[in-house]
Amino acid sequence: MDHETRKTEALRVLGFAGSLRNGSLNKALLRAAQELAPSGMTIELFDLSPLPLYNYDIEQQGDPRPVAEFKDAIRLAEALLIATPEYQHGVPGVLKNALDWASRPPGRSVMQGKPAAIMGASPGFTGTARAQTQLREALTYSKTYTVLQPEVLVGRANEKFDEAGRLIDEPTRAFMRKLLEELWGLARLLQGRGADERELHPADVKP
Amino acid sequence: MDHETRKTEALRVLGFAGSLRNGSLNKALLRAAQELAPSGMTIELFDLSPLPLYNYDIEQQGDPRPVAEFKDAIRLAEALLIATPEYQHGVPGVLKNALDWASRPPGRSVMQGKPAAIMGASPGFTGTARAQTQLREALTYSKTYTVLQPEVLVGRANEKFDEAGRLIDEPTRAFMRKLLEELWGLARLLQGRGADERELHPADVKP
Amino acid sequence: MDHETRKTEALRVLGFAGSLRNGSLNKALLRAAQELAPSGMTIELFDLSPLPLYNYDIEQQGDPRPVAEFKDAIRLAEALLIATPEYQHGVPGVLKNALDWASRPPGRSVMQGKPAAIMGASPGFTGTARAQTQLREALTYSKTYTVLQPEVLVGRANEKFDEAGRLIDEPTRAFMRKLLEELWGLARLLQGRGADERELHPADVKP
Amino acid sequence: MDHETRKTEALRVLGFAGSLRNGSLNKALLRAAQELAPSGMTIELFDLSPLPLYNYDIEQQGDPRPVAEFKDAIRLAEALLIATPEYQHGVPGVLKNALDWASRPPGRSVMQGKPAAIMGASPGFTGTARAQTQLREALTYSKTYTVLQPEVLVGRANEKFDEAGRLIDEPTRAFMRKLLEELWGLARLLQGRGADERELHPADVKP
Repeated sequence: MDHETRKTEALRVLGFAGSLRNGSLNKALLRAAQELAPSGMTIELFDLSPLPLYNYDIEQQGDPRPVAEFKDAIRLAEALLIATPEYQHGVPGVLKNALDWASRPPGRSVMQGKPAAIMGASPGFTGTARAQTQLREALTYSKTYTVLQPEVLVGRANEKFDEAGRLIDEPTRAFMRKLLEELWGLARLLQGRGADERELHPADVKP
Repeated sequence: MDHETRKTEALRVLGFAGSLRNGSLNKALLRAAQELAPSGMTIELFDLSPLPLYNYDIEQQGDPRPVAEFKDAIRLAEALLIATPEYQHGVPGVLKNALDWASRPPGRSVMQGKPAAIMGASPGFTGTARAQTQLREALTYSKTYTVLQPEVLVGRANEKFDEAGRLIDEPTRAFMRKLLEELWGLARLLQGRGADERELHPADVKP
Repeated sequence: MDHETRKTEALRVLGFAGSLRNGSLNKALLRAAQELAPSGMTIELFDLSPLPLYNYDIEQQGDPRPVAEFKDAIRLAEALLIATPEYQHGVPGVLKNALDWASRPPGRSVMQGKPAAIMGASPGFTGTARAQTQLREALTYSKTYTVLQPEVLVGRANEKFDEAGRLIDEPTRAFMRKLLEELWGLARLLQGRGADERELHPADVKP
Repeated sequence: MDHETRKTEALRVLGFAGSLRNGSLNKALLRAAQELAPSGMTIELFDLSPLPLYNYDIEQQGDPRPVAEFKDAIRLAEALLIATPEYQHGVPGVLKNALDWASRPPGRSVMQGKPAAIMGASPGFTGTARAQTQLREALTYSKTYTVLQPEVLVGRANEKFDEAGRLIDEPTRAFMRKLLEELWGLARLLQGRGADERELHPADVKP
């Protein structure tokens, strides 16, 4: 089997959620993704709770162990799947903090050029639309291309999981499948690009 | 010459600016792009001033001629180059209105799957950063992938053009060249995807 | 009746919608506001369709008549009520264009220091949440304070009006009443501030 | 001295920065605010580094001590002053995480109705414009009114402090003074509103 063929027959995805509580709807959404993933796609989950708050001074002394583990998990993954709640109309600090670590150093981070898909669940009806807008914007910094459509905005999420935390809403399951297929398609596209995706990204125009 | 080779030797780009005034810095930025385009890339400019305000009732009677011409120009282009000013911290109504027409009908618009690059110039120092954030978000609706890096944020733009409106700031010229190369690379990537880019995009998860 | 008392017994509000079509849900939402306004509050509506696209060169020759009329209507109003659809995840060009005219000249516009309330209706379920975020941000430019809570995000709006276009959803009607009361309260607060609200606002820090 | 007079002669402000490093430009900006505060305004600083990551399960067992201390400090303050860096085009996770704790429980948090001013410093030239947009939006959730103008966007901040970390750029110092005066004015306005500012804010329209 040649290299090109292998690429299209399996995809290692890393998933993480922006909520730390045990009963999190967004963790349940990630488990649903594991259940619905197309054949050949594996989704490993990473728990963000051990990450410390980002601090440049600490980073200068070397990444703390949980940060190093998070970065390693991203490095090994071929794609990312991020489930975000919406707190105060935006990305939870928990999730942004994790990405603040992972996006460092600028231009050479493990995020650089990695394909990603975004989704989110909320008890309210907006389905984390505003958090997803902010998250997508953050990811442009590391040249992290995200699946643009479909949007998986799971509003009134409490009604869409059963008591065991299994996603039972069929339209949402269909959107999830489509999102994962699109993620795979995007990963294939970016793998076609080759090495220049890894180069340093210049910062803003500096006059 | 086979099909694959042809794709990589020429790229037809459509450029338009969100400002209508004659002396617009963003129009000047588009002319700079024409000057700096890599060999084989052609950048045609479209003037947004004849477009009427978007009105669904009018659209139902058929696109007005300037709208039809704008859509045709997008359809014929292989990539888009958009220069945006920043008004009131966001995308000018002039530019958003043009895209409101072009993004219709949802899922089957001429914007669908088209690669795009964003840039902007302002007399102030933020270089239209906030307008570019909004513009990028708008483009996700039509699955319009945009170049993520470099960001071309031309602040204090009055100092960077000479009296004839020619871009004379060398760092900005270098960023522009990089942006156009990245646009070409993105177009190649998306052309590799094939037909499924053209399919209907499902709207938001509808429970 | 002294000046202070008059202020609290009547409020002239100007309302306008970001959609131009006759059957617009957001126009219907404005009519609902007229019906539900507390005693003493009058809501006059302004139609944005005659406004031309913003063009600095034209502005330099004097505001076109529809622009002058729009600015006059804002000047005479003590508060604004804006109903926004959501197009491509953001503010419609039609609405932003109107505000681009009204916000000029910076620091001395008719918008300066005017209290405003935002609301929106959409057939989908997010209720224009993302458009409202952008609209609120735009209004900061003119120091236009907006009611922050409640948010009136009317999702699945087609189900909430009867065939005559009358708002029949009771929870939405209650939120609307609350929004209008808060607008009045905000107007009273800002009237308490006095003349220094009218002064020039400095632009961004210019080093 | 009566109650009304006292209100206008002193203002207790709580300041905090979204960066944890010792040499933080945004911490230096807060110290500059302390130096430049008008007579009668005191600015106490709070260090966000001891705050744990937000977790609903932990919150249910009672706020951890650093969270309780942060909330107490906000409760005792009459106004807030927030200095934000910009990470990945947005609010740092560190800062958002602190506000995620403080905004709880919804409608009855210590943030509710508190006046606030936002500012930010960055080595690049955009001066944290995008982070400030997100931060202002987050604060709407708790009905936290913010000063809208002037915007204190301190770009190229490395050039504006001396080696001892003192703000030496005179235009920036002038903007800072103006921001603090506006914060005081806003606090006075909101104090004029009285008790109804403290009531529960209804969540989104729930049909």
